[in-house]
Amino acid sequence: MTEREWNVMLATCPSRTSLARIANKWTAMIVVTLSGGPRRFGEVREAVGGISGKVLADTLRALERDGIVERTAYDQMPPRVEYELTPLGHTLHDPLAALRRWAETHIVEVEAARDAYDAEERFPVM
Amino acid sequence: MTEREWNVMLATCPSRTSLARIANKWTAMIVVTLSGGPRRFGEVREAVGGISGKVLADTLRALERDGIVERTAYDQMPPRVEYELTPLGHTLHDPLAALRRWAETHIVEVEAARDAYDAEERFPVM
Repeated sequence: MTEREWNVMLATCPSRTSLARIANKWTAMIVVTLSGGPRRFGEVREAVGGISGKVLADTLRALERDGIVERTAYDQMPPRVEYELTPLGHTLHDPLAALRRWAETHIVEVEAARDAYDAEERFPVM
Repeated sequence: MTEREWNVMLATCPSRTSLARIANKWTAMIVVTLSGGPRRFGEVREAVGGISGKVLADTLRALERDGIVERTAYDQMPPRVEYELTPLGHTLHDPLAALRRWAETHIVEVEAARDAYDAEERFPVM
């Protein structure tokens, strides 16, 4: 792995751990949410329907650790904590927004494929 | 959810299930592998370092169900089974290859961020 021969296809390449973090539905939805500007924890939670507090906290922490999200605690009463994309995090917006768009654009085809697959499984050709 | 108001941010929108499938490290690596043409199971397994047989089988099955991968069994001896991207699956190549490229391009920054984060955690500012 010398001289920047990074390759996610190799199990031991460090870039694999980064791919695992970004190729993730929660990461995608959080990055899309934060691309609109800084948000408080509760605001992100409200935007990303169905996410649990624990998963959101864990994911935000992992994104902060990877330099994608910055957490700022404002010293005021009541305390205020905000999350925002770093410059590095902003470079993730386009690829992740593309995945979101793909999911929304193609869900009709995907559901048709699922129906066909499930019908075939139920009545297998002998 | 009438009239194609698909939105992955809503927990109950069907497009969320499709996002979960495509925003996944194994999906990304498998789609990138199959973009080179049809591959046998063992060839995919060899290309995607570290993937277990079970995870690969489960992921291929899920991708087939979603209409992204097509499985073809050739009636010959010895039996031959090949996996390839469908036309729909090919439209996933660019966004997923972009994620792979992101992971490989930015891993140096990501690792530097991780080191800084971990150092901070170890010696917290009081």
